Amino acid sequence: MRFDIITVLPDLLESPFAHSILQRAKNKGLAEIYVHNLRDYSTNKHKSVDDYPYGGGSGMVLQIEPFAKCIEQLQAERTYDEIIYMTPDGETFNQDIANGLSTKGNMMILCGHYKGIDQRIRDIYVTKEISIGDYVLSGGELPAAIVTDAIIRLIPGVLSDETSALSDSFQDGLLDAPIYTRPAEWKGHKVPDILLSGHEAKIAAWKDEQQLKRTQERRPDLLND
Amino acid sequence: MRFDIITVLPDLLESPFAHSILQRAKNKGLAEIYVHNLRDYSTNKHKSVDDYPYGGGSGMVLQIEPFAKCIEQLQAERTYDEIIYMTPDGETFNQDIANGLSTKGNMMILCGHYKGIDQRIRDIYVTKEISIGDYVLSGGELPAAIVTDAIIRLIPGVLSDETSALSDSFQDGLLDAPIYTRPAEWKGHKVPDILLSGHEAKIAAWKDEQQLKRTQERRPDLLND
Repeated sequence: MRFDIITVLPDLLESPFAHSILQRAKNKGLAEIYVHNLRDYSTNKHKSVDDYPYGGGSGMVLQIEPFAKCIEQLQAERTYDEIIYMTPDGETFNQDIANGLSTKGNMMILCGHYKGIDQRIRDIYVTKEISIGDYVLSGGELPAAIVTDAIIRLIPGVLSDETSALSDSFQDGLLDAPIYTRPAEWKGHKVPDILLSGHEAKIAAWKDEQQLKRTQERRPDLLND
Repeated sequence: MRFDIITVLPDLLESPFAHSILQRAKNKGLAEIYVHNLRDYSTNKHKSVDDYPYGGGSGMVLQIEPFAKCIEQLQAERTYDEIIYMTPDGETFNQDIANGLSTKGNMMILCGHYKGIDQRIRDIYVTKEISIGDYVLSGGELPAAIVTDAIIRLIPGVLSDETSALSDSFQDGLLDAPIYTRPAEWKGHKVPDILLSGHEAKIAAWKDEQQLKRTQERRPDLLND
């Protein structure tokens, strides 16, 4: 799996991709991530890539030409399964979308910044628009890191324990049960007795019950889907 | 505004907090962000902070003692308005929650990693549990950066143009209208004539119409709220 991320702020993505699971996936050769600086594709000597919006309004808009140049250069080298634009008005990202994208090969992710990108980039090049949630951020860089993380951890072999991703919240449509570890008692706060009982079947039943209870309390909408 | 973020992977957060709006807010003295390494609060000589889950199951669980030590040390220095835990089973983050938190003073954010944190930390210390969306990630670090970004950009004076945040998607319950910038024509793809007309009232009407149209097409649920 290969990700090409196009951004006006490549430095922002340095540390998220240098640690944890993303680093492990890269080291194992399971994922490649390349971050491209949009300014390197500027068509003028000032290296500018944004301009004022037509029709007025606040904020700057990223221009079509540098994106077009970068996208077409990458497309000349390989075929892309998806060209994704991170935007608050895109399709809301969820575990199903992550599962689907985890089977793809090459993906490009375009990050907006400032007020956004010229609509024509979306119309001409973008195949999928994703929002990570109903809130506004400074740019698409952190959302690109979120989507990359959610997808890459699903590639077989990335997580040290393969059953781990399958038992996560959402994968079976339910939230996780409460989890506990040592010490069994801390300042009078005890771990539920059942978890210390060693009785596997009863523990499994308790976990199922807790998952259902937590989902009913916190996210009844998940049970109706 | 002050954020104290507790994590087992402080390095992951280095570049997101060193760039863009978060850096600008720190430079202007409008926000302080401190990242604390959970391992510095380990209670054993191996600096370990996690252990196997009681009752079996895959993945490691972050222990209560290091969190308790770090949280109580911070609480001894100042009062916190919220102690937030980033978790997929928390309340789904949205612009309303961001607006509300942008009026607070001191906030702590706890990041889970691996399989999560001991439930007792949540029961004893946490005042607010937030999910950034219905998907599973490697840890709470990127979500903590997302929430911090969404909140800090709302502090007056952080964005160079104050009207910018108010005209964002979601702030008026609608998605943004398409935006365009120079050139007016690119390889036959033209900016809508109306935006080049200079007719302010007509442009404003077109934008309103586009906002409503895009919201109806993409997110009819926002119109029913």
